[in-house]
Amino acid sequence: MSHAPSFPIAVIIVSDRAARGARADQTFPRLAELLEKSGLARPAAPRVVPDEREQIAAAIREASARAALVLTSGGTGIAPRDVTPEATRDVIARELPGLSEAMRAASRRNTAFADLSRAVAGVCGAALVVNLPGSPRGACECLEAVLPVLGHAVDLLRGTVADCQAEASRHARDAEPEGE
Amino acid sequence: MSHAPSFPIAVIIVSDRAARGARADQTFPRLAELLEKSGLARPAAPRVVPDEREQIAAAIREASARAALVLTSGGTGIAPRDVTPEATRDVIARELPGLSEAMRAASRRNTAFADLSRAVAGVCGAALVVNLPGSPRGACECLEAVLPVLGHAVDLLRGTVADCQAEASRHARDAEPEGE
Amino acid sequence: MSHAPSFPIAVIIVSDRAARGARADQTFPRLAELLEKSGLARPAAPRVVPDEREQIAAAIREASARAALVLTSGGTGIAPRDVTPEATRDVIARELPGLSEAMRAASRRNTAFADLSRAVAGVCGAALVVNLPGSPRGACECLEAVLPVLGHAVDLLRGTVADCQAEASRHARDAEPEGE
Repeated sequence: MSHAPSFPIAVIIVSDRAARGARADQTFPRLAELLEKSGLARPAAPRVVPDEREQIAAAIREASARAALVLTSGGTGIAPRDVTPEATRDVIARELPGLSEAMRAASRRNTAFADLSRAVAGVCGAALVVNLPGSPRGACECLEAVLPVLGHAVDLLRGTVADCQAEASRHARDAEPEGE
Repeated sequence: MSHAPSFPIAVIIVSDRAARGARADQTFPRLAELLEKSGLARPAAPRVVPDEREQIAAAIREASARAALVLTSGGTGIAPRDVTPEATRDVIARELPGLSEAMRAASRRNTAFADLSRAVAGVCGAALVVNLPGSPRGACECLEAVLPVLGHAVDLLRGTVADCQAEASRHARDAEPEGE
Repeated sequence: MSHAPSFPIAVIIVSDRAARGARADQTFPRLAELLEKSGLARPAAPRVVPDEREQIAAAIREASARAALVLTSGGTGIAPRDVTPEATRDVIARELPGLSEAMRAASRRNTAFADLSRAVAGVCGAALVVNLPGSPRGACECLEAVLPVLGHAVDLLRGTVADCQAEASRHARDAEPEGE
């Protein structure tokens, strides 16, 4: 599981309240600390977007162009304005259900509420995109569940030439993979 | 996990044999007992429908208009007439994969056959819809796996104004969420 | 879990290198041994196809016409040429998420990399189709996780009259089930 080489990591905070400045985000510092402790790179300052599907999708696309790993936090639940999974599916070419399952399985041991997460993970261009919950504790719990495999996944994807823009309007299930 | 306030619960029994009176349903009494013991409301008398996709979908839509939680039992397997998951996807706006995963993970500890369940859970209007297997034991096992989170999920959804009818013909994955 | 009667099993090896003869497949012998030890039939000699979506889909369709259980090995990961899940979805009428979840849950205990598998399982005609990873160890690990339920699943499906060809271009989620 040791993964020496570092890679750029982007974090997107999805929150209406944080986006309009009504609440300071407390999740990014915790995620940054966890990533550093794990020997991965410290992420750049997060982008904060409201719970709007198109803005979230655009933020993921832009982040995927410069980072190898894109983490979103927030908007994964069942409240009406929770649309991060939909926005993520708008821009990923392939879904990785195993990462979502692993996060929920780990989180479920701590709280039954984990099962309400609709978080998805997938591939946007050559970047790995992973949805995390909004709460600091939930986000860290879920990130920890997949940390051991992120370096390997990024290595696999970095061999990829992909056009994330072109994928934007195609659904993951219907998308033709790059390599054909 | 304590959830004091009660909310209306509807149960739909999906079974060709029960619908034509060839067999008495034995699952509803067990589910009702389990719900009451858990401090939730006793469900109204169940509606019984045959394994027909459109009839199941219509029953879920109607139940979602009056109940906060809609449980179906039966039709989740791989036999040709098992179509409850398809019918459910016809009427839900959002799928909640964590609930299905939790039910299968719990049920798998008792029987390998749990993995053949294609049960889904999701949101229809402001109601939470959960598919359960047809057998009394399987249905109770699966319900128990998600019971701790149902009250919280219902609370989250009750804030929602939603038009379930309009969602009926749209696929969960493509549907625009209400809140935008 | 005892399942006396035997049924025909087909294995498809998905690998660019094996297909062009650059590498001998080492997974089939291990799968064959595991199936025999479990009291199931020894599979016929495997078909080997490159990582091409249409060739994989065609191989699954053909195998489903003569076998009750079709196992694929390879092409389930996240590398650009891994397209076995997409090819499988092209030809199955129904997906069985519980089998994929069970395989990943079992495999996850051995390696975090299990979560990168996008393997799917489903029904093509009257055959059960299960994607397995390409490595001998991964393939056996995953097969073992679902072995106890395969006989029962095949029994359920064998009652089915289905036209696999007609399903080829329809997506599993949208497909009308046979039995209506």
